[in-house]
Amino acid sequence: MNTFGKNVRISLFGESHGPCLGITIDGLPAGYTLNIEKIYEGLARRKGLPEISTPRREKDEFQIVSGYFENHTTGAPLSILISNQDFDSSPYEYGVIRPGHADYPLYKKFHGNHDYLGGGHSSGRLTAPLIILGCICEELLNQKGIFIASRIKSIRNIQDKPLDYNQIDLDLLLSLKKMAFPAIDQRAQNLMMSTIKKVSSLGDSVGGTIQTFVFGCPVGLGEPFFNSVESYLSHLMFSIPGVKALEFGDGFSGTESLGSKQNDQIESHLGVVKFLSNHAGGINGGITNGNTIVFTVGVKPPSSIKKPQTTINVITDTNITKQITGKHDPCIVHRVLPVVEALTAFAIFDLWLENQYG
Amino acid sequence: MNTFGKNVRISLFGESHGPCLGITIDGLPAGYTLNIEKIYEGLARRKGLPEISTPRREKDEFQIVSGYFENHTTGAPLSILISNQDFDSSPYEYGVIRPGHADYPLYKKFHGNHDYLGGGHSSGRLTAPLIILGCICEELLNQKGIFIASRIKSIRNIQDKPLDYNQIDLDLLLSLKKMAFPAIDQRAQNLMMSTIKKVSSLGDSVGGTIQTFVFGCPVGLGEPFFNSVESYLSHLMFSIPGVKALEFGDGFSGTESLGSKQNDQIESHLGVVKFLSNHAGGINGGITNGNTIVFTVGVKPPSSIKKPQTTINVITDTNITKQITGKHDPCIVHRVLPVVEALTAFAIFDLWLENQYG
Amino acid sequence: MNTFGKNVRISLFGESHGPCLGITIDGLPAGYTLNIEKIYEGLARRKGLPEISTPRREKDEFQIVSGYFENHTTGAPLSILISNQDFDSSPYEYGVIRPGHADYPLYKKFHGNHDYLGGGHSSGRLTAPLIILGCICEELLNQKGIFIASRIKSIRNIQDKPLDYNQIDLDLLLSLKKMAFPAIDQRAQNLMMSTIKKVSSLGDSVGGTIQTFVFGCPVGLGEPFFNSVESYLSHLMFSIPGVKALEFGDGFSGTESLGSKQNDQIESHLGVVKFLSNHAGGINGGITNGNTIVFTVGVKPPSSIKKPQTTINVITDTNITKQITGKHDPCIVHRVLPVVEALTAFAIFDLWLENQYG
Amino acid sequence: MNTFGKNVRISLFGESHGPCLGITIDGLPAGYTLNIEKIYEGLARRKGLPEISTPRREKDEFQIVSGYFENHTTGAPLSILISNQDFDSSPYEYGVIRPGHADYPLYKKFHGNHDYLGGGHSSGRLTAPLIILGCICEELLNQKGIFIASRIKSIRNIQDKPLDYNQIDLDLLLSLKKMAFPAIDQRAQNLMMSTIKKVSSLGDSVGGTIQTFVFGCPVGLGEPFFNSVESYLSHLMFSIPGVKALEFGDGFSGTESLGSKQNDQIESHLGVVKFLSNHAGGINGGITNGNTIVFTVGVKPPSSIKKPQTTINVITDTNITKQITGKHDPCIVHRVLPVVEALTAFAIFDLWLENQYG
Repeated sequence: MNTFGKNVRISLFGESHGPCLGITIDGLPAGYTLNIEKIYEGLARRKGLPEISTPRREKDEFQIVSGYFENHTTGAPLSILISNQDFDSSPYEYGVIRPGHADYPLYKKFHGNHDYLGGGHSSGRLTAPLIILGCICEELLNQKGIFIASRIKSIRNIQDKPLDYNQIDLDLLLSLKKMAFPAIDQRAQNLMMSTIKKVSSLGDSVGGTIQTFVFGCPVGLGEPFFNSVESYLSHLMFSIPGVKALEFGDGFSGTESLGSKQNDQIESHLGVVKFLSNHAGGINGGITNGNTIVFTVGVKPPSSIKKPQTTINVITDTNITKQITGKHDPCIVHRVLPVVEALTAFAIFDLWLENQYG
Repeated sequence: MNTFGKNVRISLFGESHGPCLGITIDGLPAGYTLNIEKIYEGLARRKGLPEISTPRREKDEFQIVSGYFENHTTGAPLSILISNQDFDSSPYEYGVIRPGHADYPLYKKFHGNHDYLGGGHSSGRLTAPLIILGCICEELLNQKGIFIASRIKSIRNIQDKPLDYNQIDLDLLLSLKKMAFPAIDQRAQNLMMSTIKKVSSLGDSVGGTIQTFVFGCPVGLGEPFFNSVESYLSHLMFSIPGVKALEFGDGFSGTESLGSKQNDQIESHLGVVKFLSNHAGGINGGITNGNTIVFTVGVKPPSSIKKPQTTINVITDTNITKQITGKHDPCIVHRVLPVVEALTAFAIFDLWLENQYG
Repeated sequence: MNTFGKNVRISLFGESHGPCLGITIDGLPAGYTLNIEKIYEGLARRKGLPEISTPRREKDEFQIVSGYFENHTTGAPLSILISNQDFDSSPYEYGVIRPGHADYPLYKKFHGNHDYLGGGHSSGRLTAPLIILGCICEELLNQKGIFIASRIKSIRNIQDKPLDYNQIDLDLLLSLKKMAFPAIDQRAQNLMMSTIKKVSSLGDSVGGTIQTFVFGCPVGLGEPFFNSVESYLSHLMFSIPGVKALEFGDGFSGTESLGSKQNDQIESHLGVVKFLSNHAGGINGGITNGNTIVFTVGVKPPSSIKKPQTTINVITDTNITKQITGKHDPCIVHRVLPVVEALTAFAIFDLWLENQYG
Repeated sequence: MNTFGKNVRISLFGESHGPCLGITIDGLPAGYTLNIEKIYEGLARRKGLPEISTPRREKDEFQIVSGYFENHTTGAPLSILISNQDFDSSPYEYGVIRPGHADYPLYKKFHGNHDYLGGGHSSGRLTAPLIILGCICEELLNQKGIFIASRIKSIRNIQDKPLDYNQIDLDLLLSLKKMAFPAIDQRAQNLMMSTIKKVSSLGDSVGGTIQTFVFGCPVGLGEPFFNSVESYLSHLMFSIPGVKALEFGDGFSGTESLGSKQNDQIESHLGVVKFLSNHAGGINGGITNGNTIVFTVGVKPPSSIKKPQTTINVITDTNITKQITGKHDPCIVHRVLPVVEALTAFAIFDLWLENQYG
C-alpha cells in the first residue's frame, strides 16, 4: 500500500541508497505551474540545520518526468524523481538488526529480501518526494485562503510557550513559516537547540513534539465515519517514520478535563459564527467546524545512536553488541515538521476536493 | 466514505433514531459459525454500566439478512441489522447547535439536510454494529493465537497503575476481559467510578484514556508507507466518536526520553527472539515486531451535559443558552473500550489476511 | 468485492431466497427527494412481461432504512432493503450442479459453504436493488440534460432495424422508455416475442442483445487509462448475470472496416462542434466526445432450461441427468435491459461527479 | 485514475514525447528475480513487424529504479522507467483535432492543458511499461501452471480458422507464443499480412480481433458481483487504446443460440470434473470454472491515416482538411496482442492472489 488518496492519488517509490526516489501524483488540476523555488525551499527545510542534522548532504535535485508540459500540469499523472547521490552503504551489514529500526520486521515480512541499506524503502529519505507533493498542495490551498504552519512544541522536556488555540491568527502562521527552528519562545528555542547538541555529543538522540495549525479551513471537510478529518490526517501522520503519537486540540490533556470546559461554546454576530474556545482543535464529530485545526505529533528519538546496544544477527542467530556508525541525526523533530505540513496540505486538499461536488 | 477495509470490507449505515442500523461485511472466510452469545456479550459491554451510563436501554437485537446460511458464513456479504427501539426525539430541535457535537459542521456540510435527531448518522449508536464486526474478527484471531484486551488507563486525572509493556501476558488480557470496568488497580477503579458519579451529579461529564493490548501478533503485519499498523489502526480509532488522541507504546512520554532508552534492544535464545523492553509498543517502522502491541486512546468528556451553555440557533441566527436534556452518559470511556477492541480486531484481521499471500 | 464506485459508492448484499436484498449507496447529494413512483416503475420493468417471464411474482416492496429523513437524502449512506417473499427452495438440491450456472465455481470457491438456493448471492434477483440505484442516478442525470434509453437489438437471430448512431435524438430515447419490449421495428418485435414463446414451449431458452444510448453527455467524462468510460461501463456491465459480450459504437463490425470509414470526422459551425458520424459510440480515447454514447450488450440464453442435461453431483461424485424445475425465464434480455440502464446511469453519474472539481 | 489493482497495485505515468514512461508495481512477492531477457522479448513483440508497423524505432531500454536489490524484488514498490528517444514532435499542431483520436475530449477535459504531442499520456506508447508488468505476472503464473497465449482471430474480414474452445491445450498455446504474427491458419495469416500491406499502401488503416486463452486457471477466481473475472478483465482490456469490443466464450454468437446448446454440460470421472463444451469461455457466473478462459477483443483500425479528413482547429474555430503525417501503423492488432496478454496476466495474477487467503 504505497498508494494513497481519493481525489488526488499518490504513489511513492524508492530506497535510501537506490538511484532515485519518486512520487507519482494523479488528480491534480490541469494548468497549474509548479513553484519550483518554493519546492526547493521546502526540500531545504527538510534537510534540517547543519549544526544539529545528519552530515549526509543530498542536493535533492528533482526531475519532472511526466504530467508537465510547457510549464504547467496537463491533467495526466505528474511523476517526479529525486536522485540519491551522497550515501555510503558500507556501515550496513545484512542480518544485523539495529534496535528501534524496522530491520527485524522487514527481514521477517519479506523473508530476507528487503533492501537493508540505510533502511531501504522504510528510510526517512522517502519523505523528500512528499515535500514536493506538499508544496504543490499547500500553494493550491493558499489560493483558497487556507494556510498551514507548525511549531516545535517541545524537545525532550523543554516546552515552547502555551498557546490559546482560539487566538491563532494568520500572522502567527506566517511568522512560523519564516523560522528555521520554529519555537515561538526564543529562550525555549535556544534551550532546545543546546539540548540536541548536548545529547548528540553523548552519542544519543532525542525526541519532541510538533504542533500544526491549519488556518482558514472551510466548515464541512471530512466524512462522518471512516474518513473523519482526524482519521485521514492520522493515517498520513503515522506513516511518517518516527511518529508515535498524535492528538487533536486538547487531546490527552482534554481527557482530564470536564465536558463543561471542553465544549467549545458558540456565538453568532450578524451571521458570523464564532467559537468561544478551541479545545476541539477545529474538528467536531470528525468534520471541520471552521475554527483553526490544531494537532500535535509526537516524534520519538531517532533510533540510530552511537552508544553500544545489545542486538542480534538474524543470519548467524547470535547476540551481538552494536554501535551504529554512519551519518545520522541526533534529533529529527525539525526535519519531520515540514513533512507533517506536507502531508497535512495533501490531506486537506484531498478533502477539500471531495466537497466540491454535491 | 462509510466503507473501509482492504481484504475485509465493511460498509456502515444507520442513524440514532432511524428504524435500524446495519453493517455489511464482505470478505470473511466462508464456513464460519457466528458466536451469537459472544456477540450479545459484546453488545452488552458497549451498553455500559447502569449506574454510570445512559438510561437509553436498547435491546440491540440483531438480524442477519444475508451471507449466512445453515449457521455459517457463505462467502457472500454478511449483512446485519440492529433495530432502534428506545429513543425519544422530542429533545432535539432543528437548527439548535449543541456545543461539542457535530451539529454545526453537519448542518453546513449537508446544507441543512442532515438527520439531526440524536446526532443522526454521527451518533455513537453507530458503534453497535461495529461491535458485531469486532466479535467476529476477534474470534477468528483467537483461533490464530492472537488476543486483544484493554484497560481503562485513566478517568479524569485518576490513573490506573503503571505497567511494563514488556511484561504483558495472556493472563492479564484474559482477566481484563472479565471485568465490567477493567482498571487493574482496584482502588483506582473505585475512584474512577466515584468520580464519574460525582461529575454526573453536577450535570457535567468526564473523559479518560483506554489502553489496548494485542498479544500474539506475528512479526511482519503492516506496510512500510501508507498502511503502517499505526496508520491503519489510527484511521479506525479516530473514526470512533469522542476519540481525540492516540499514542503507540511510550507515545508522548517517549518523546521526552532518549534514543538509548527508547530503543528496544534484542536478544536471541536458541532462535527465539526476545525484546528487552517494549517502548515501541510492538511496532517498528510501522510493522509489527512480534512483541505485544500497546496503544492508548484518549476519549474526551461527552459533549451532552446538563449545564447551561452558550450556543446558536442557525436557522434564526440567534444566540441562545442551551441545557441538554434527554438520556446521556456522563462518561463513555468504558463504553468506547469495547469499540476500540472491535476495530482493533478488524484492523489486525485485515492486516493478517494481507500477509497470507506472497 | 461487492462494493463499487468512486464518488458514489455502492455496497450490495442479499440472496435469492434470503429474507431480503439490499443496497447501501454512499455519496449521493443531500436534499434529494426520491421519486418513489419512478422506482416502482423501474422495478416493474425488471419483472418482465407476464407472458414471457418467470412466474415468480415478487412485489419488490422496499424499505429505506437509513440516509433518508423528512423525505430527502441526508448525505449519510442511503440503505434500502427489498424483501423476498415468493420463492420456493424445494427444487434446489445441494451438490447438484446446474449446467451454465455458477454452482460449480461457487462450490469450489467457498468450499461448499455457499447458499445454493436459487443461485444465492449470484442470482439475478440481486439486480432488483440496482434498479433503485439506477432510478436515483438517472433522475439526477436527467436534471443535467443527460438521458439514457435502450432497445432490444436482437433476440436470437432476429434483428431490430439498423440505426445511424449519429441520428439518435431525445425523441427516440423517450419513445423507447415507454415501450414494454422496446424494439423499434414493430414487426421485429412481434417476431422476437413469438420466438421467445416458441423456445419456451420447447423447454429451452434464448438470448439476445441490448443497445443502450446516453444522450446529452458532456465532453470529457472518463479518465485516460484505467478508468476510461469504456472500462468503467464494462466493469459494471459484466457484473450483470448473463452478460457475455460488449461493444462500443461499431464494435466488432468496426474491426472489419477501414480507418477512413471508422474515424468520425468533425465540423464546427459558429463554435458548435458536430461529428459527421458516430462509429466510435461517443467515446474517443476512453473519454466522451459529446456525441451520443452507444454500446451493445450480449446476453446469453438463461441457463435454467427444462430439457434434460448431463451434469454431476459433486457430493456423491456421480454423473446425473438433470431437468431444471421451478420458476424460470425463457429469455432475460428484456429484464436485463433496465439493469443495463441502471448501471449505466450509476456509471455516468459517478464519472460526472468526478469532473465537477478540477 | 492511473492506478489499478487490488493485491498488486500499478501506477502508470508518462507521455509519448516525454523523457520517459514508467510504471510502479506494488505488492509483488519479495525474492523474485526478473527475467530480463523475457521482458526484452515482450517489448520487442509489442514493436510489431518491420514491414507492417510504424518506423518509430524505440530501443525500449528500461531502468529499474526501486524495489529491486541484488537481483530480486524486495517487497517494496518496483518502479521501472523506459526512455523515449525516437520521436518527432514536428507533425503535431496544438488545436488541430485528429479524427478518431482523443484530441478533442482531452482538449475539453483538461481545458487545453493536455500534452498533445503524439497523443501525450493517451498514446499507445504507454503500453510499453504494461508489457514489463505482464512479463512478470505471466512468469509468476507459469510457475503455478497457468499459461496465457493469443491468436489473431481476424484482420478486416479475414478470419483465422474456427476453434473448439474445449479442445485448447498447452501445445497450442506454446506454439502461438512462438509466432510473430500468430494466426493458426497459415493461409489466413498470409492474407492478413497482405491485406495490411495493401491498406497501408492506400494510406488507410485496418482493424481486427484478438482471441486470448488462459490455460490451467484454477476453479474459483473472481468475485460474484462487481469483481467478476469478466468485469476485471474487461476493465483492463478497455483501457488499451484501440479496443472497442470484447466477448467471452461464444459471446455475441452465443446470443443467437439456445440455452440447451450454450450450457456447458459436465461429467466427472474418478473425481475429475470435465466439461463437454466450453461455450462459456471458462467462466460461470463471473467465476472461473477450471476450463480454459477464452475471450475475444476487437481492435479498431488506427485513427492516424494519410487520407485527407475533415476536422477542426479548436483554437481558431475553423474547419480544415487534415492529412496525418509522421510515423504510424496501418494496423495495430499484432501490437495490441502482447498488451492484451500482459493485462490478462496481471488480472489473473491479482485474482489468484485474492484466493490465497480464506
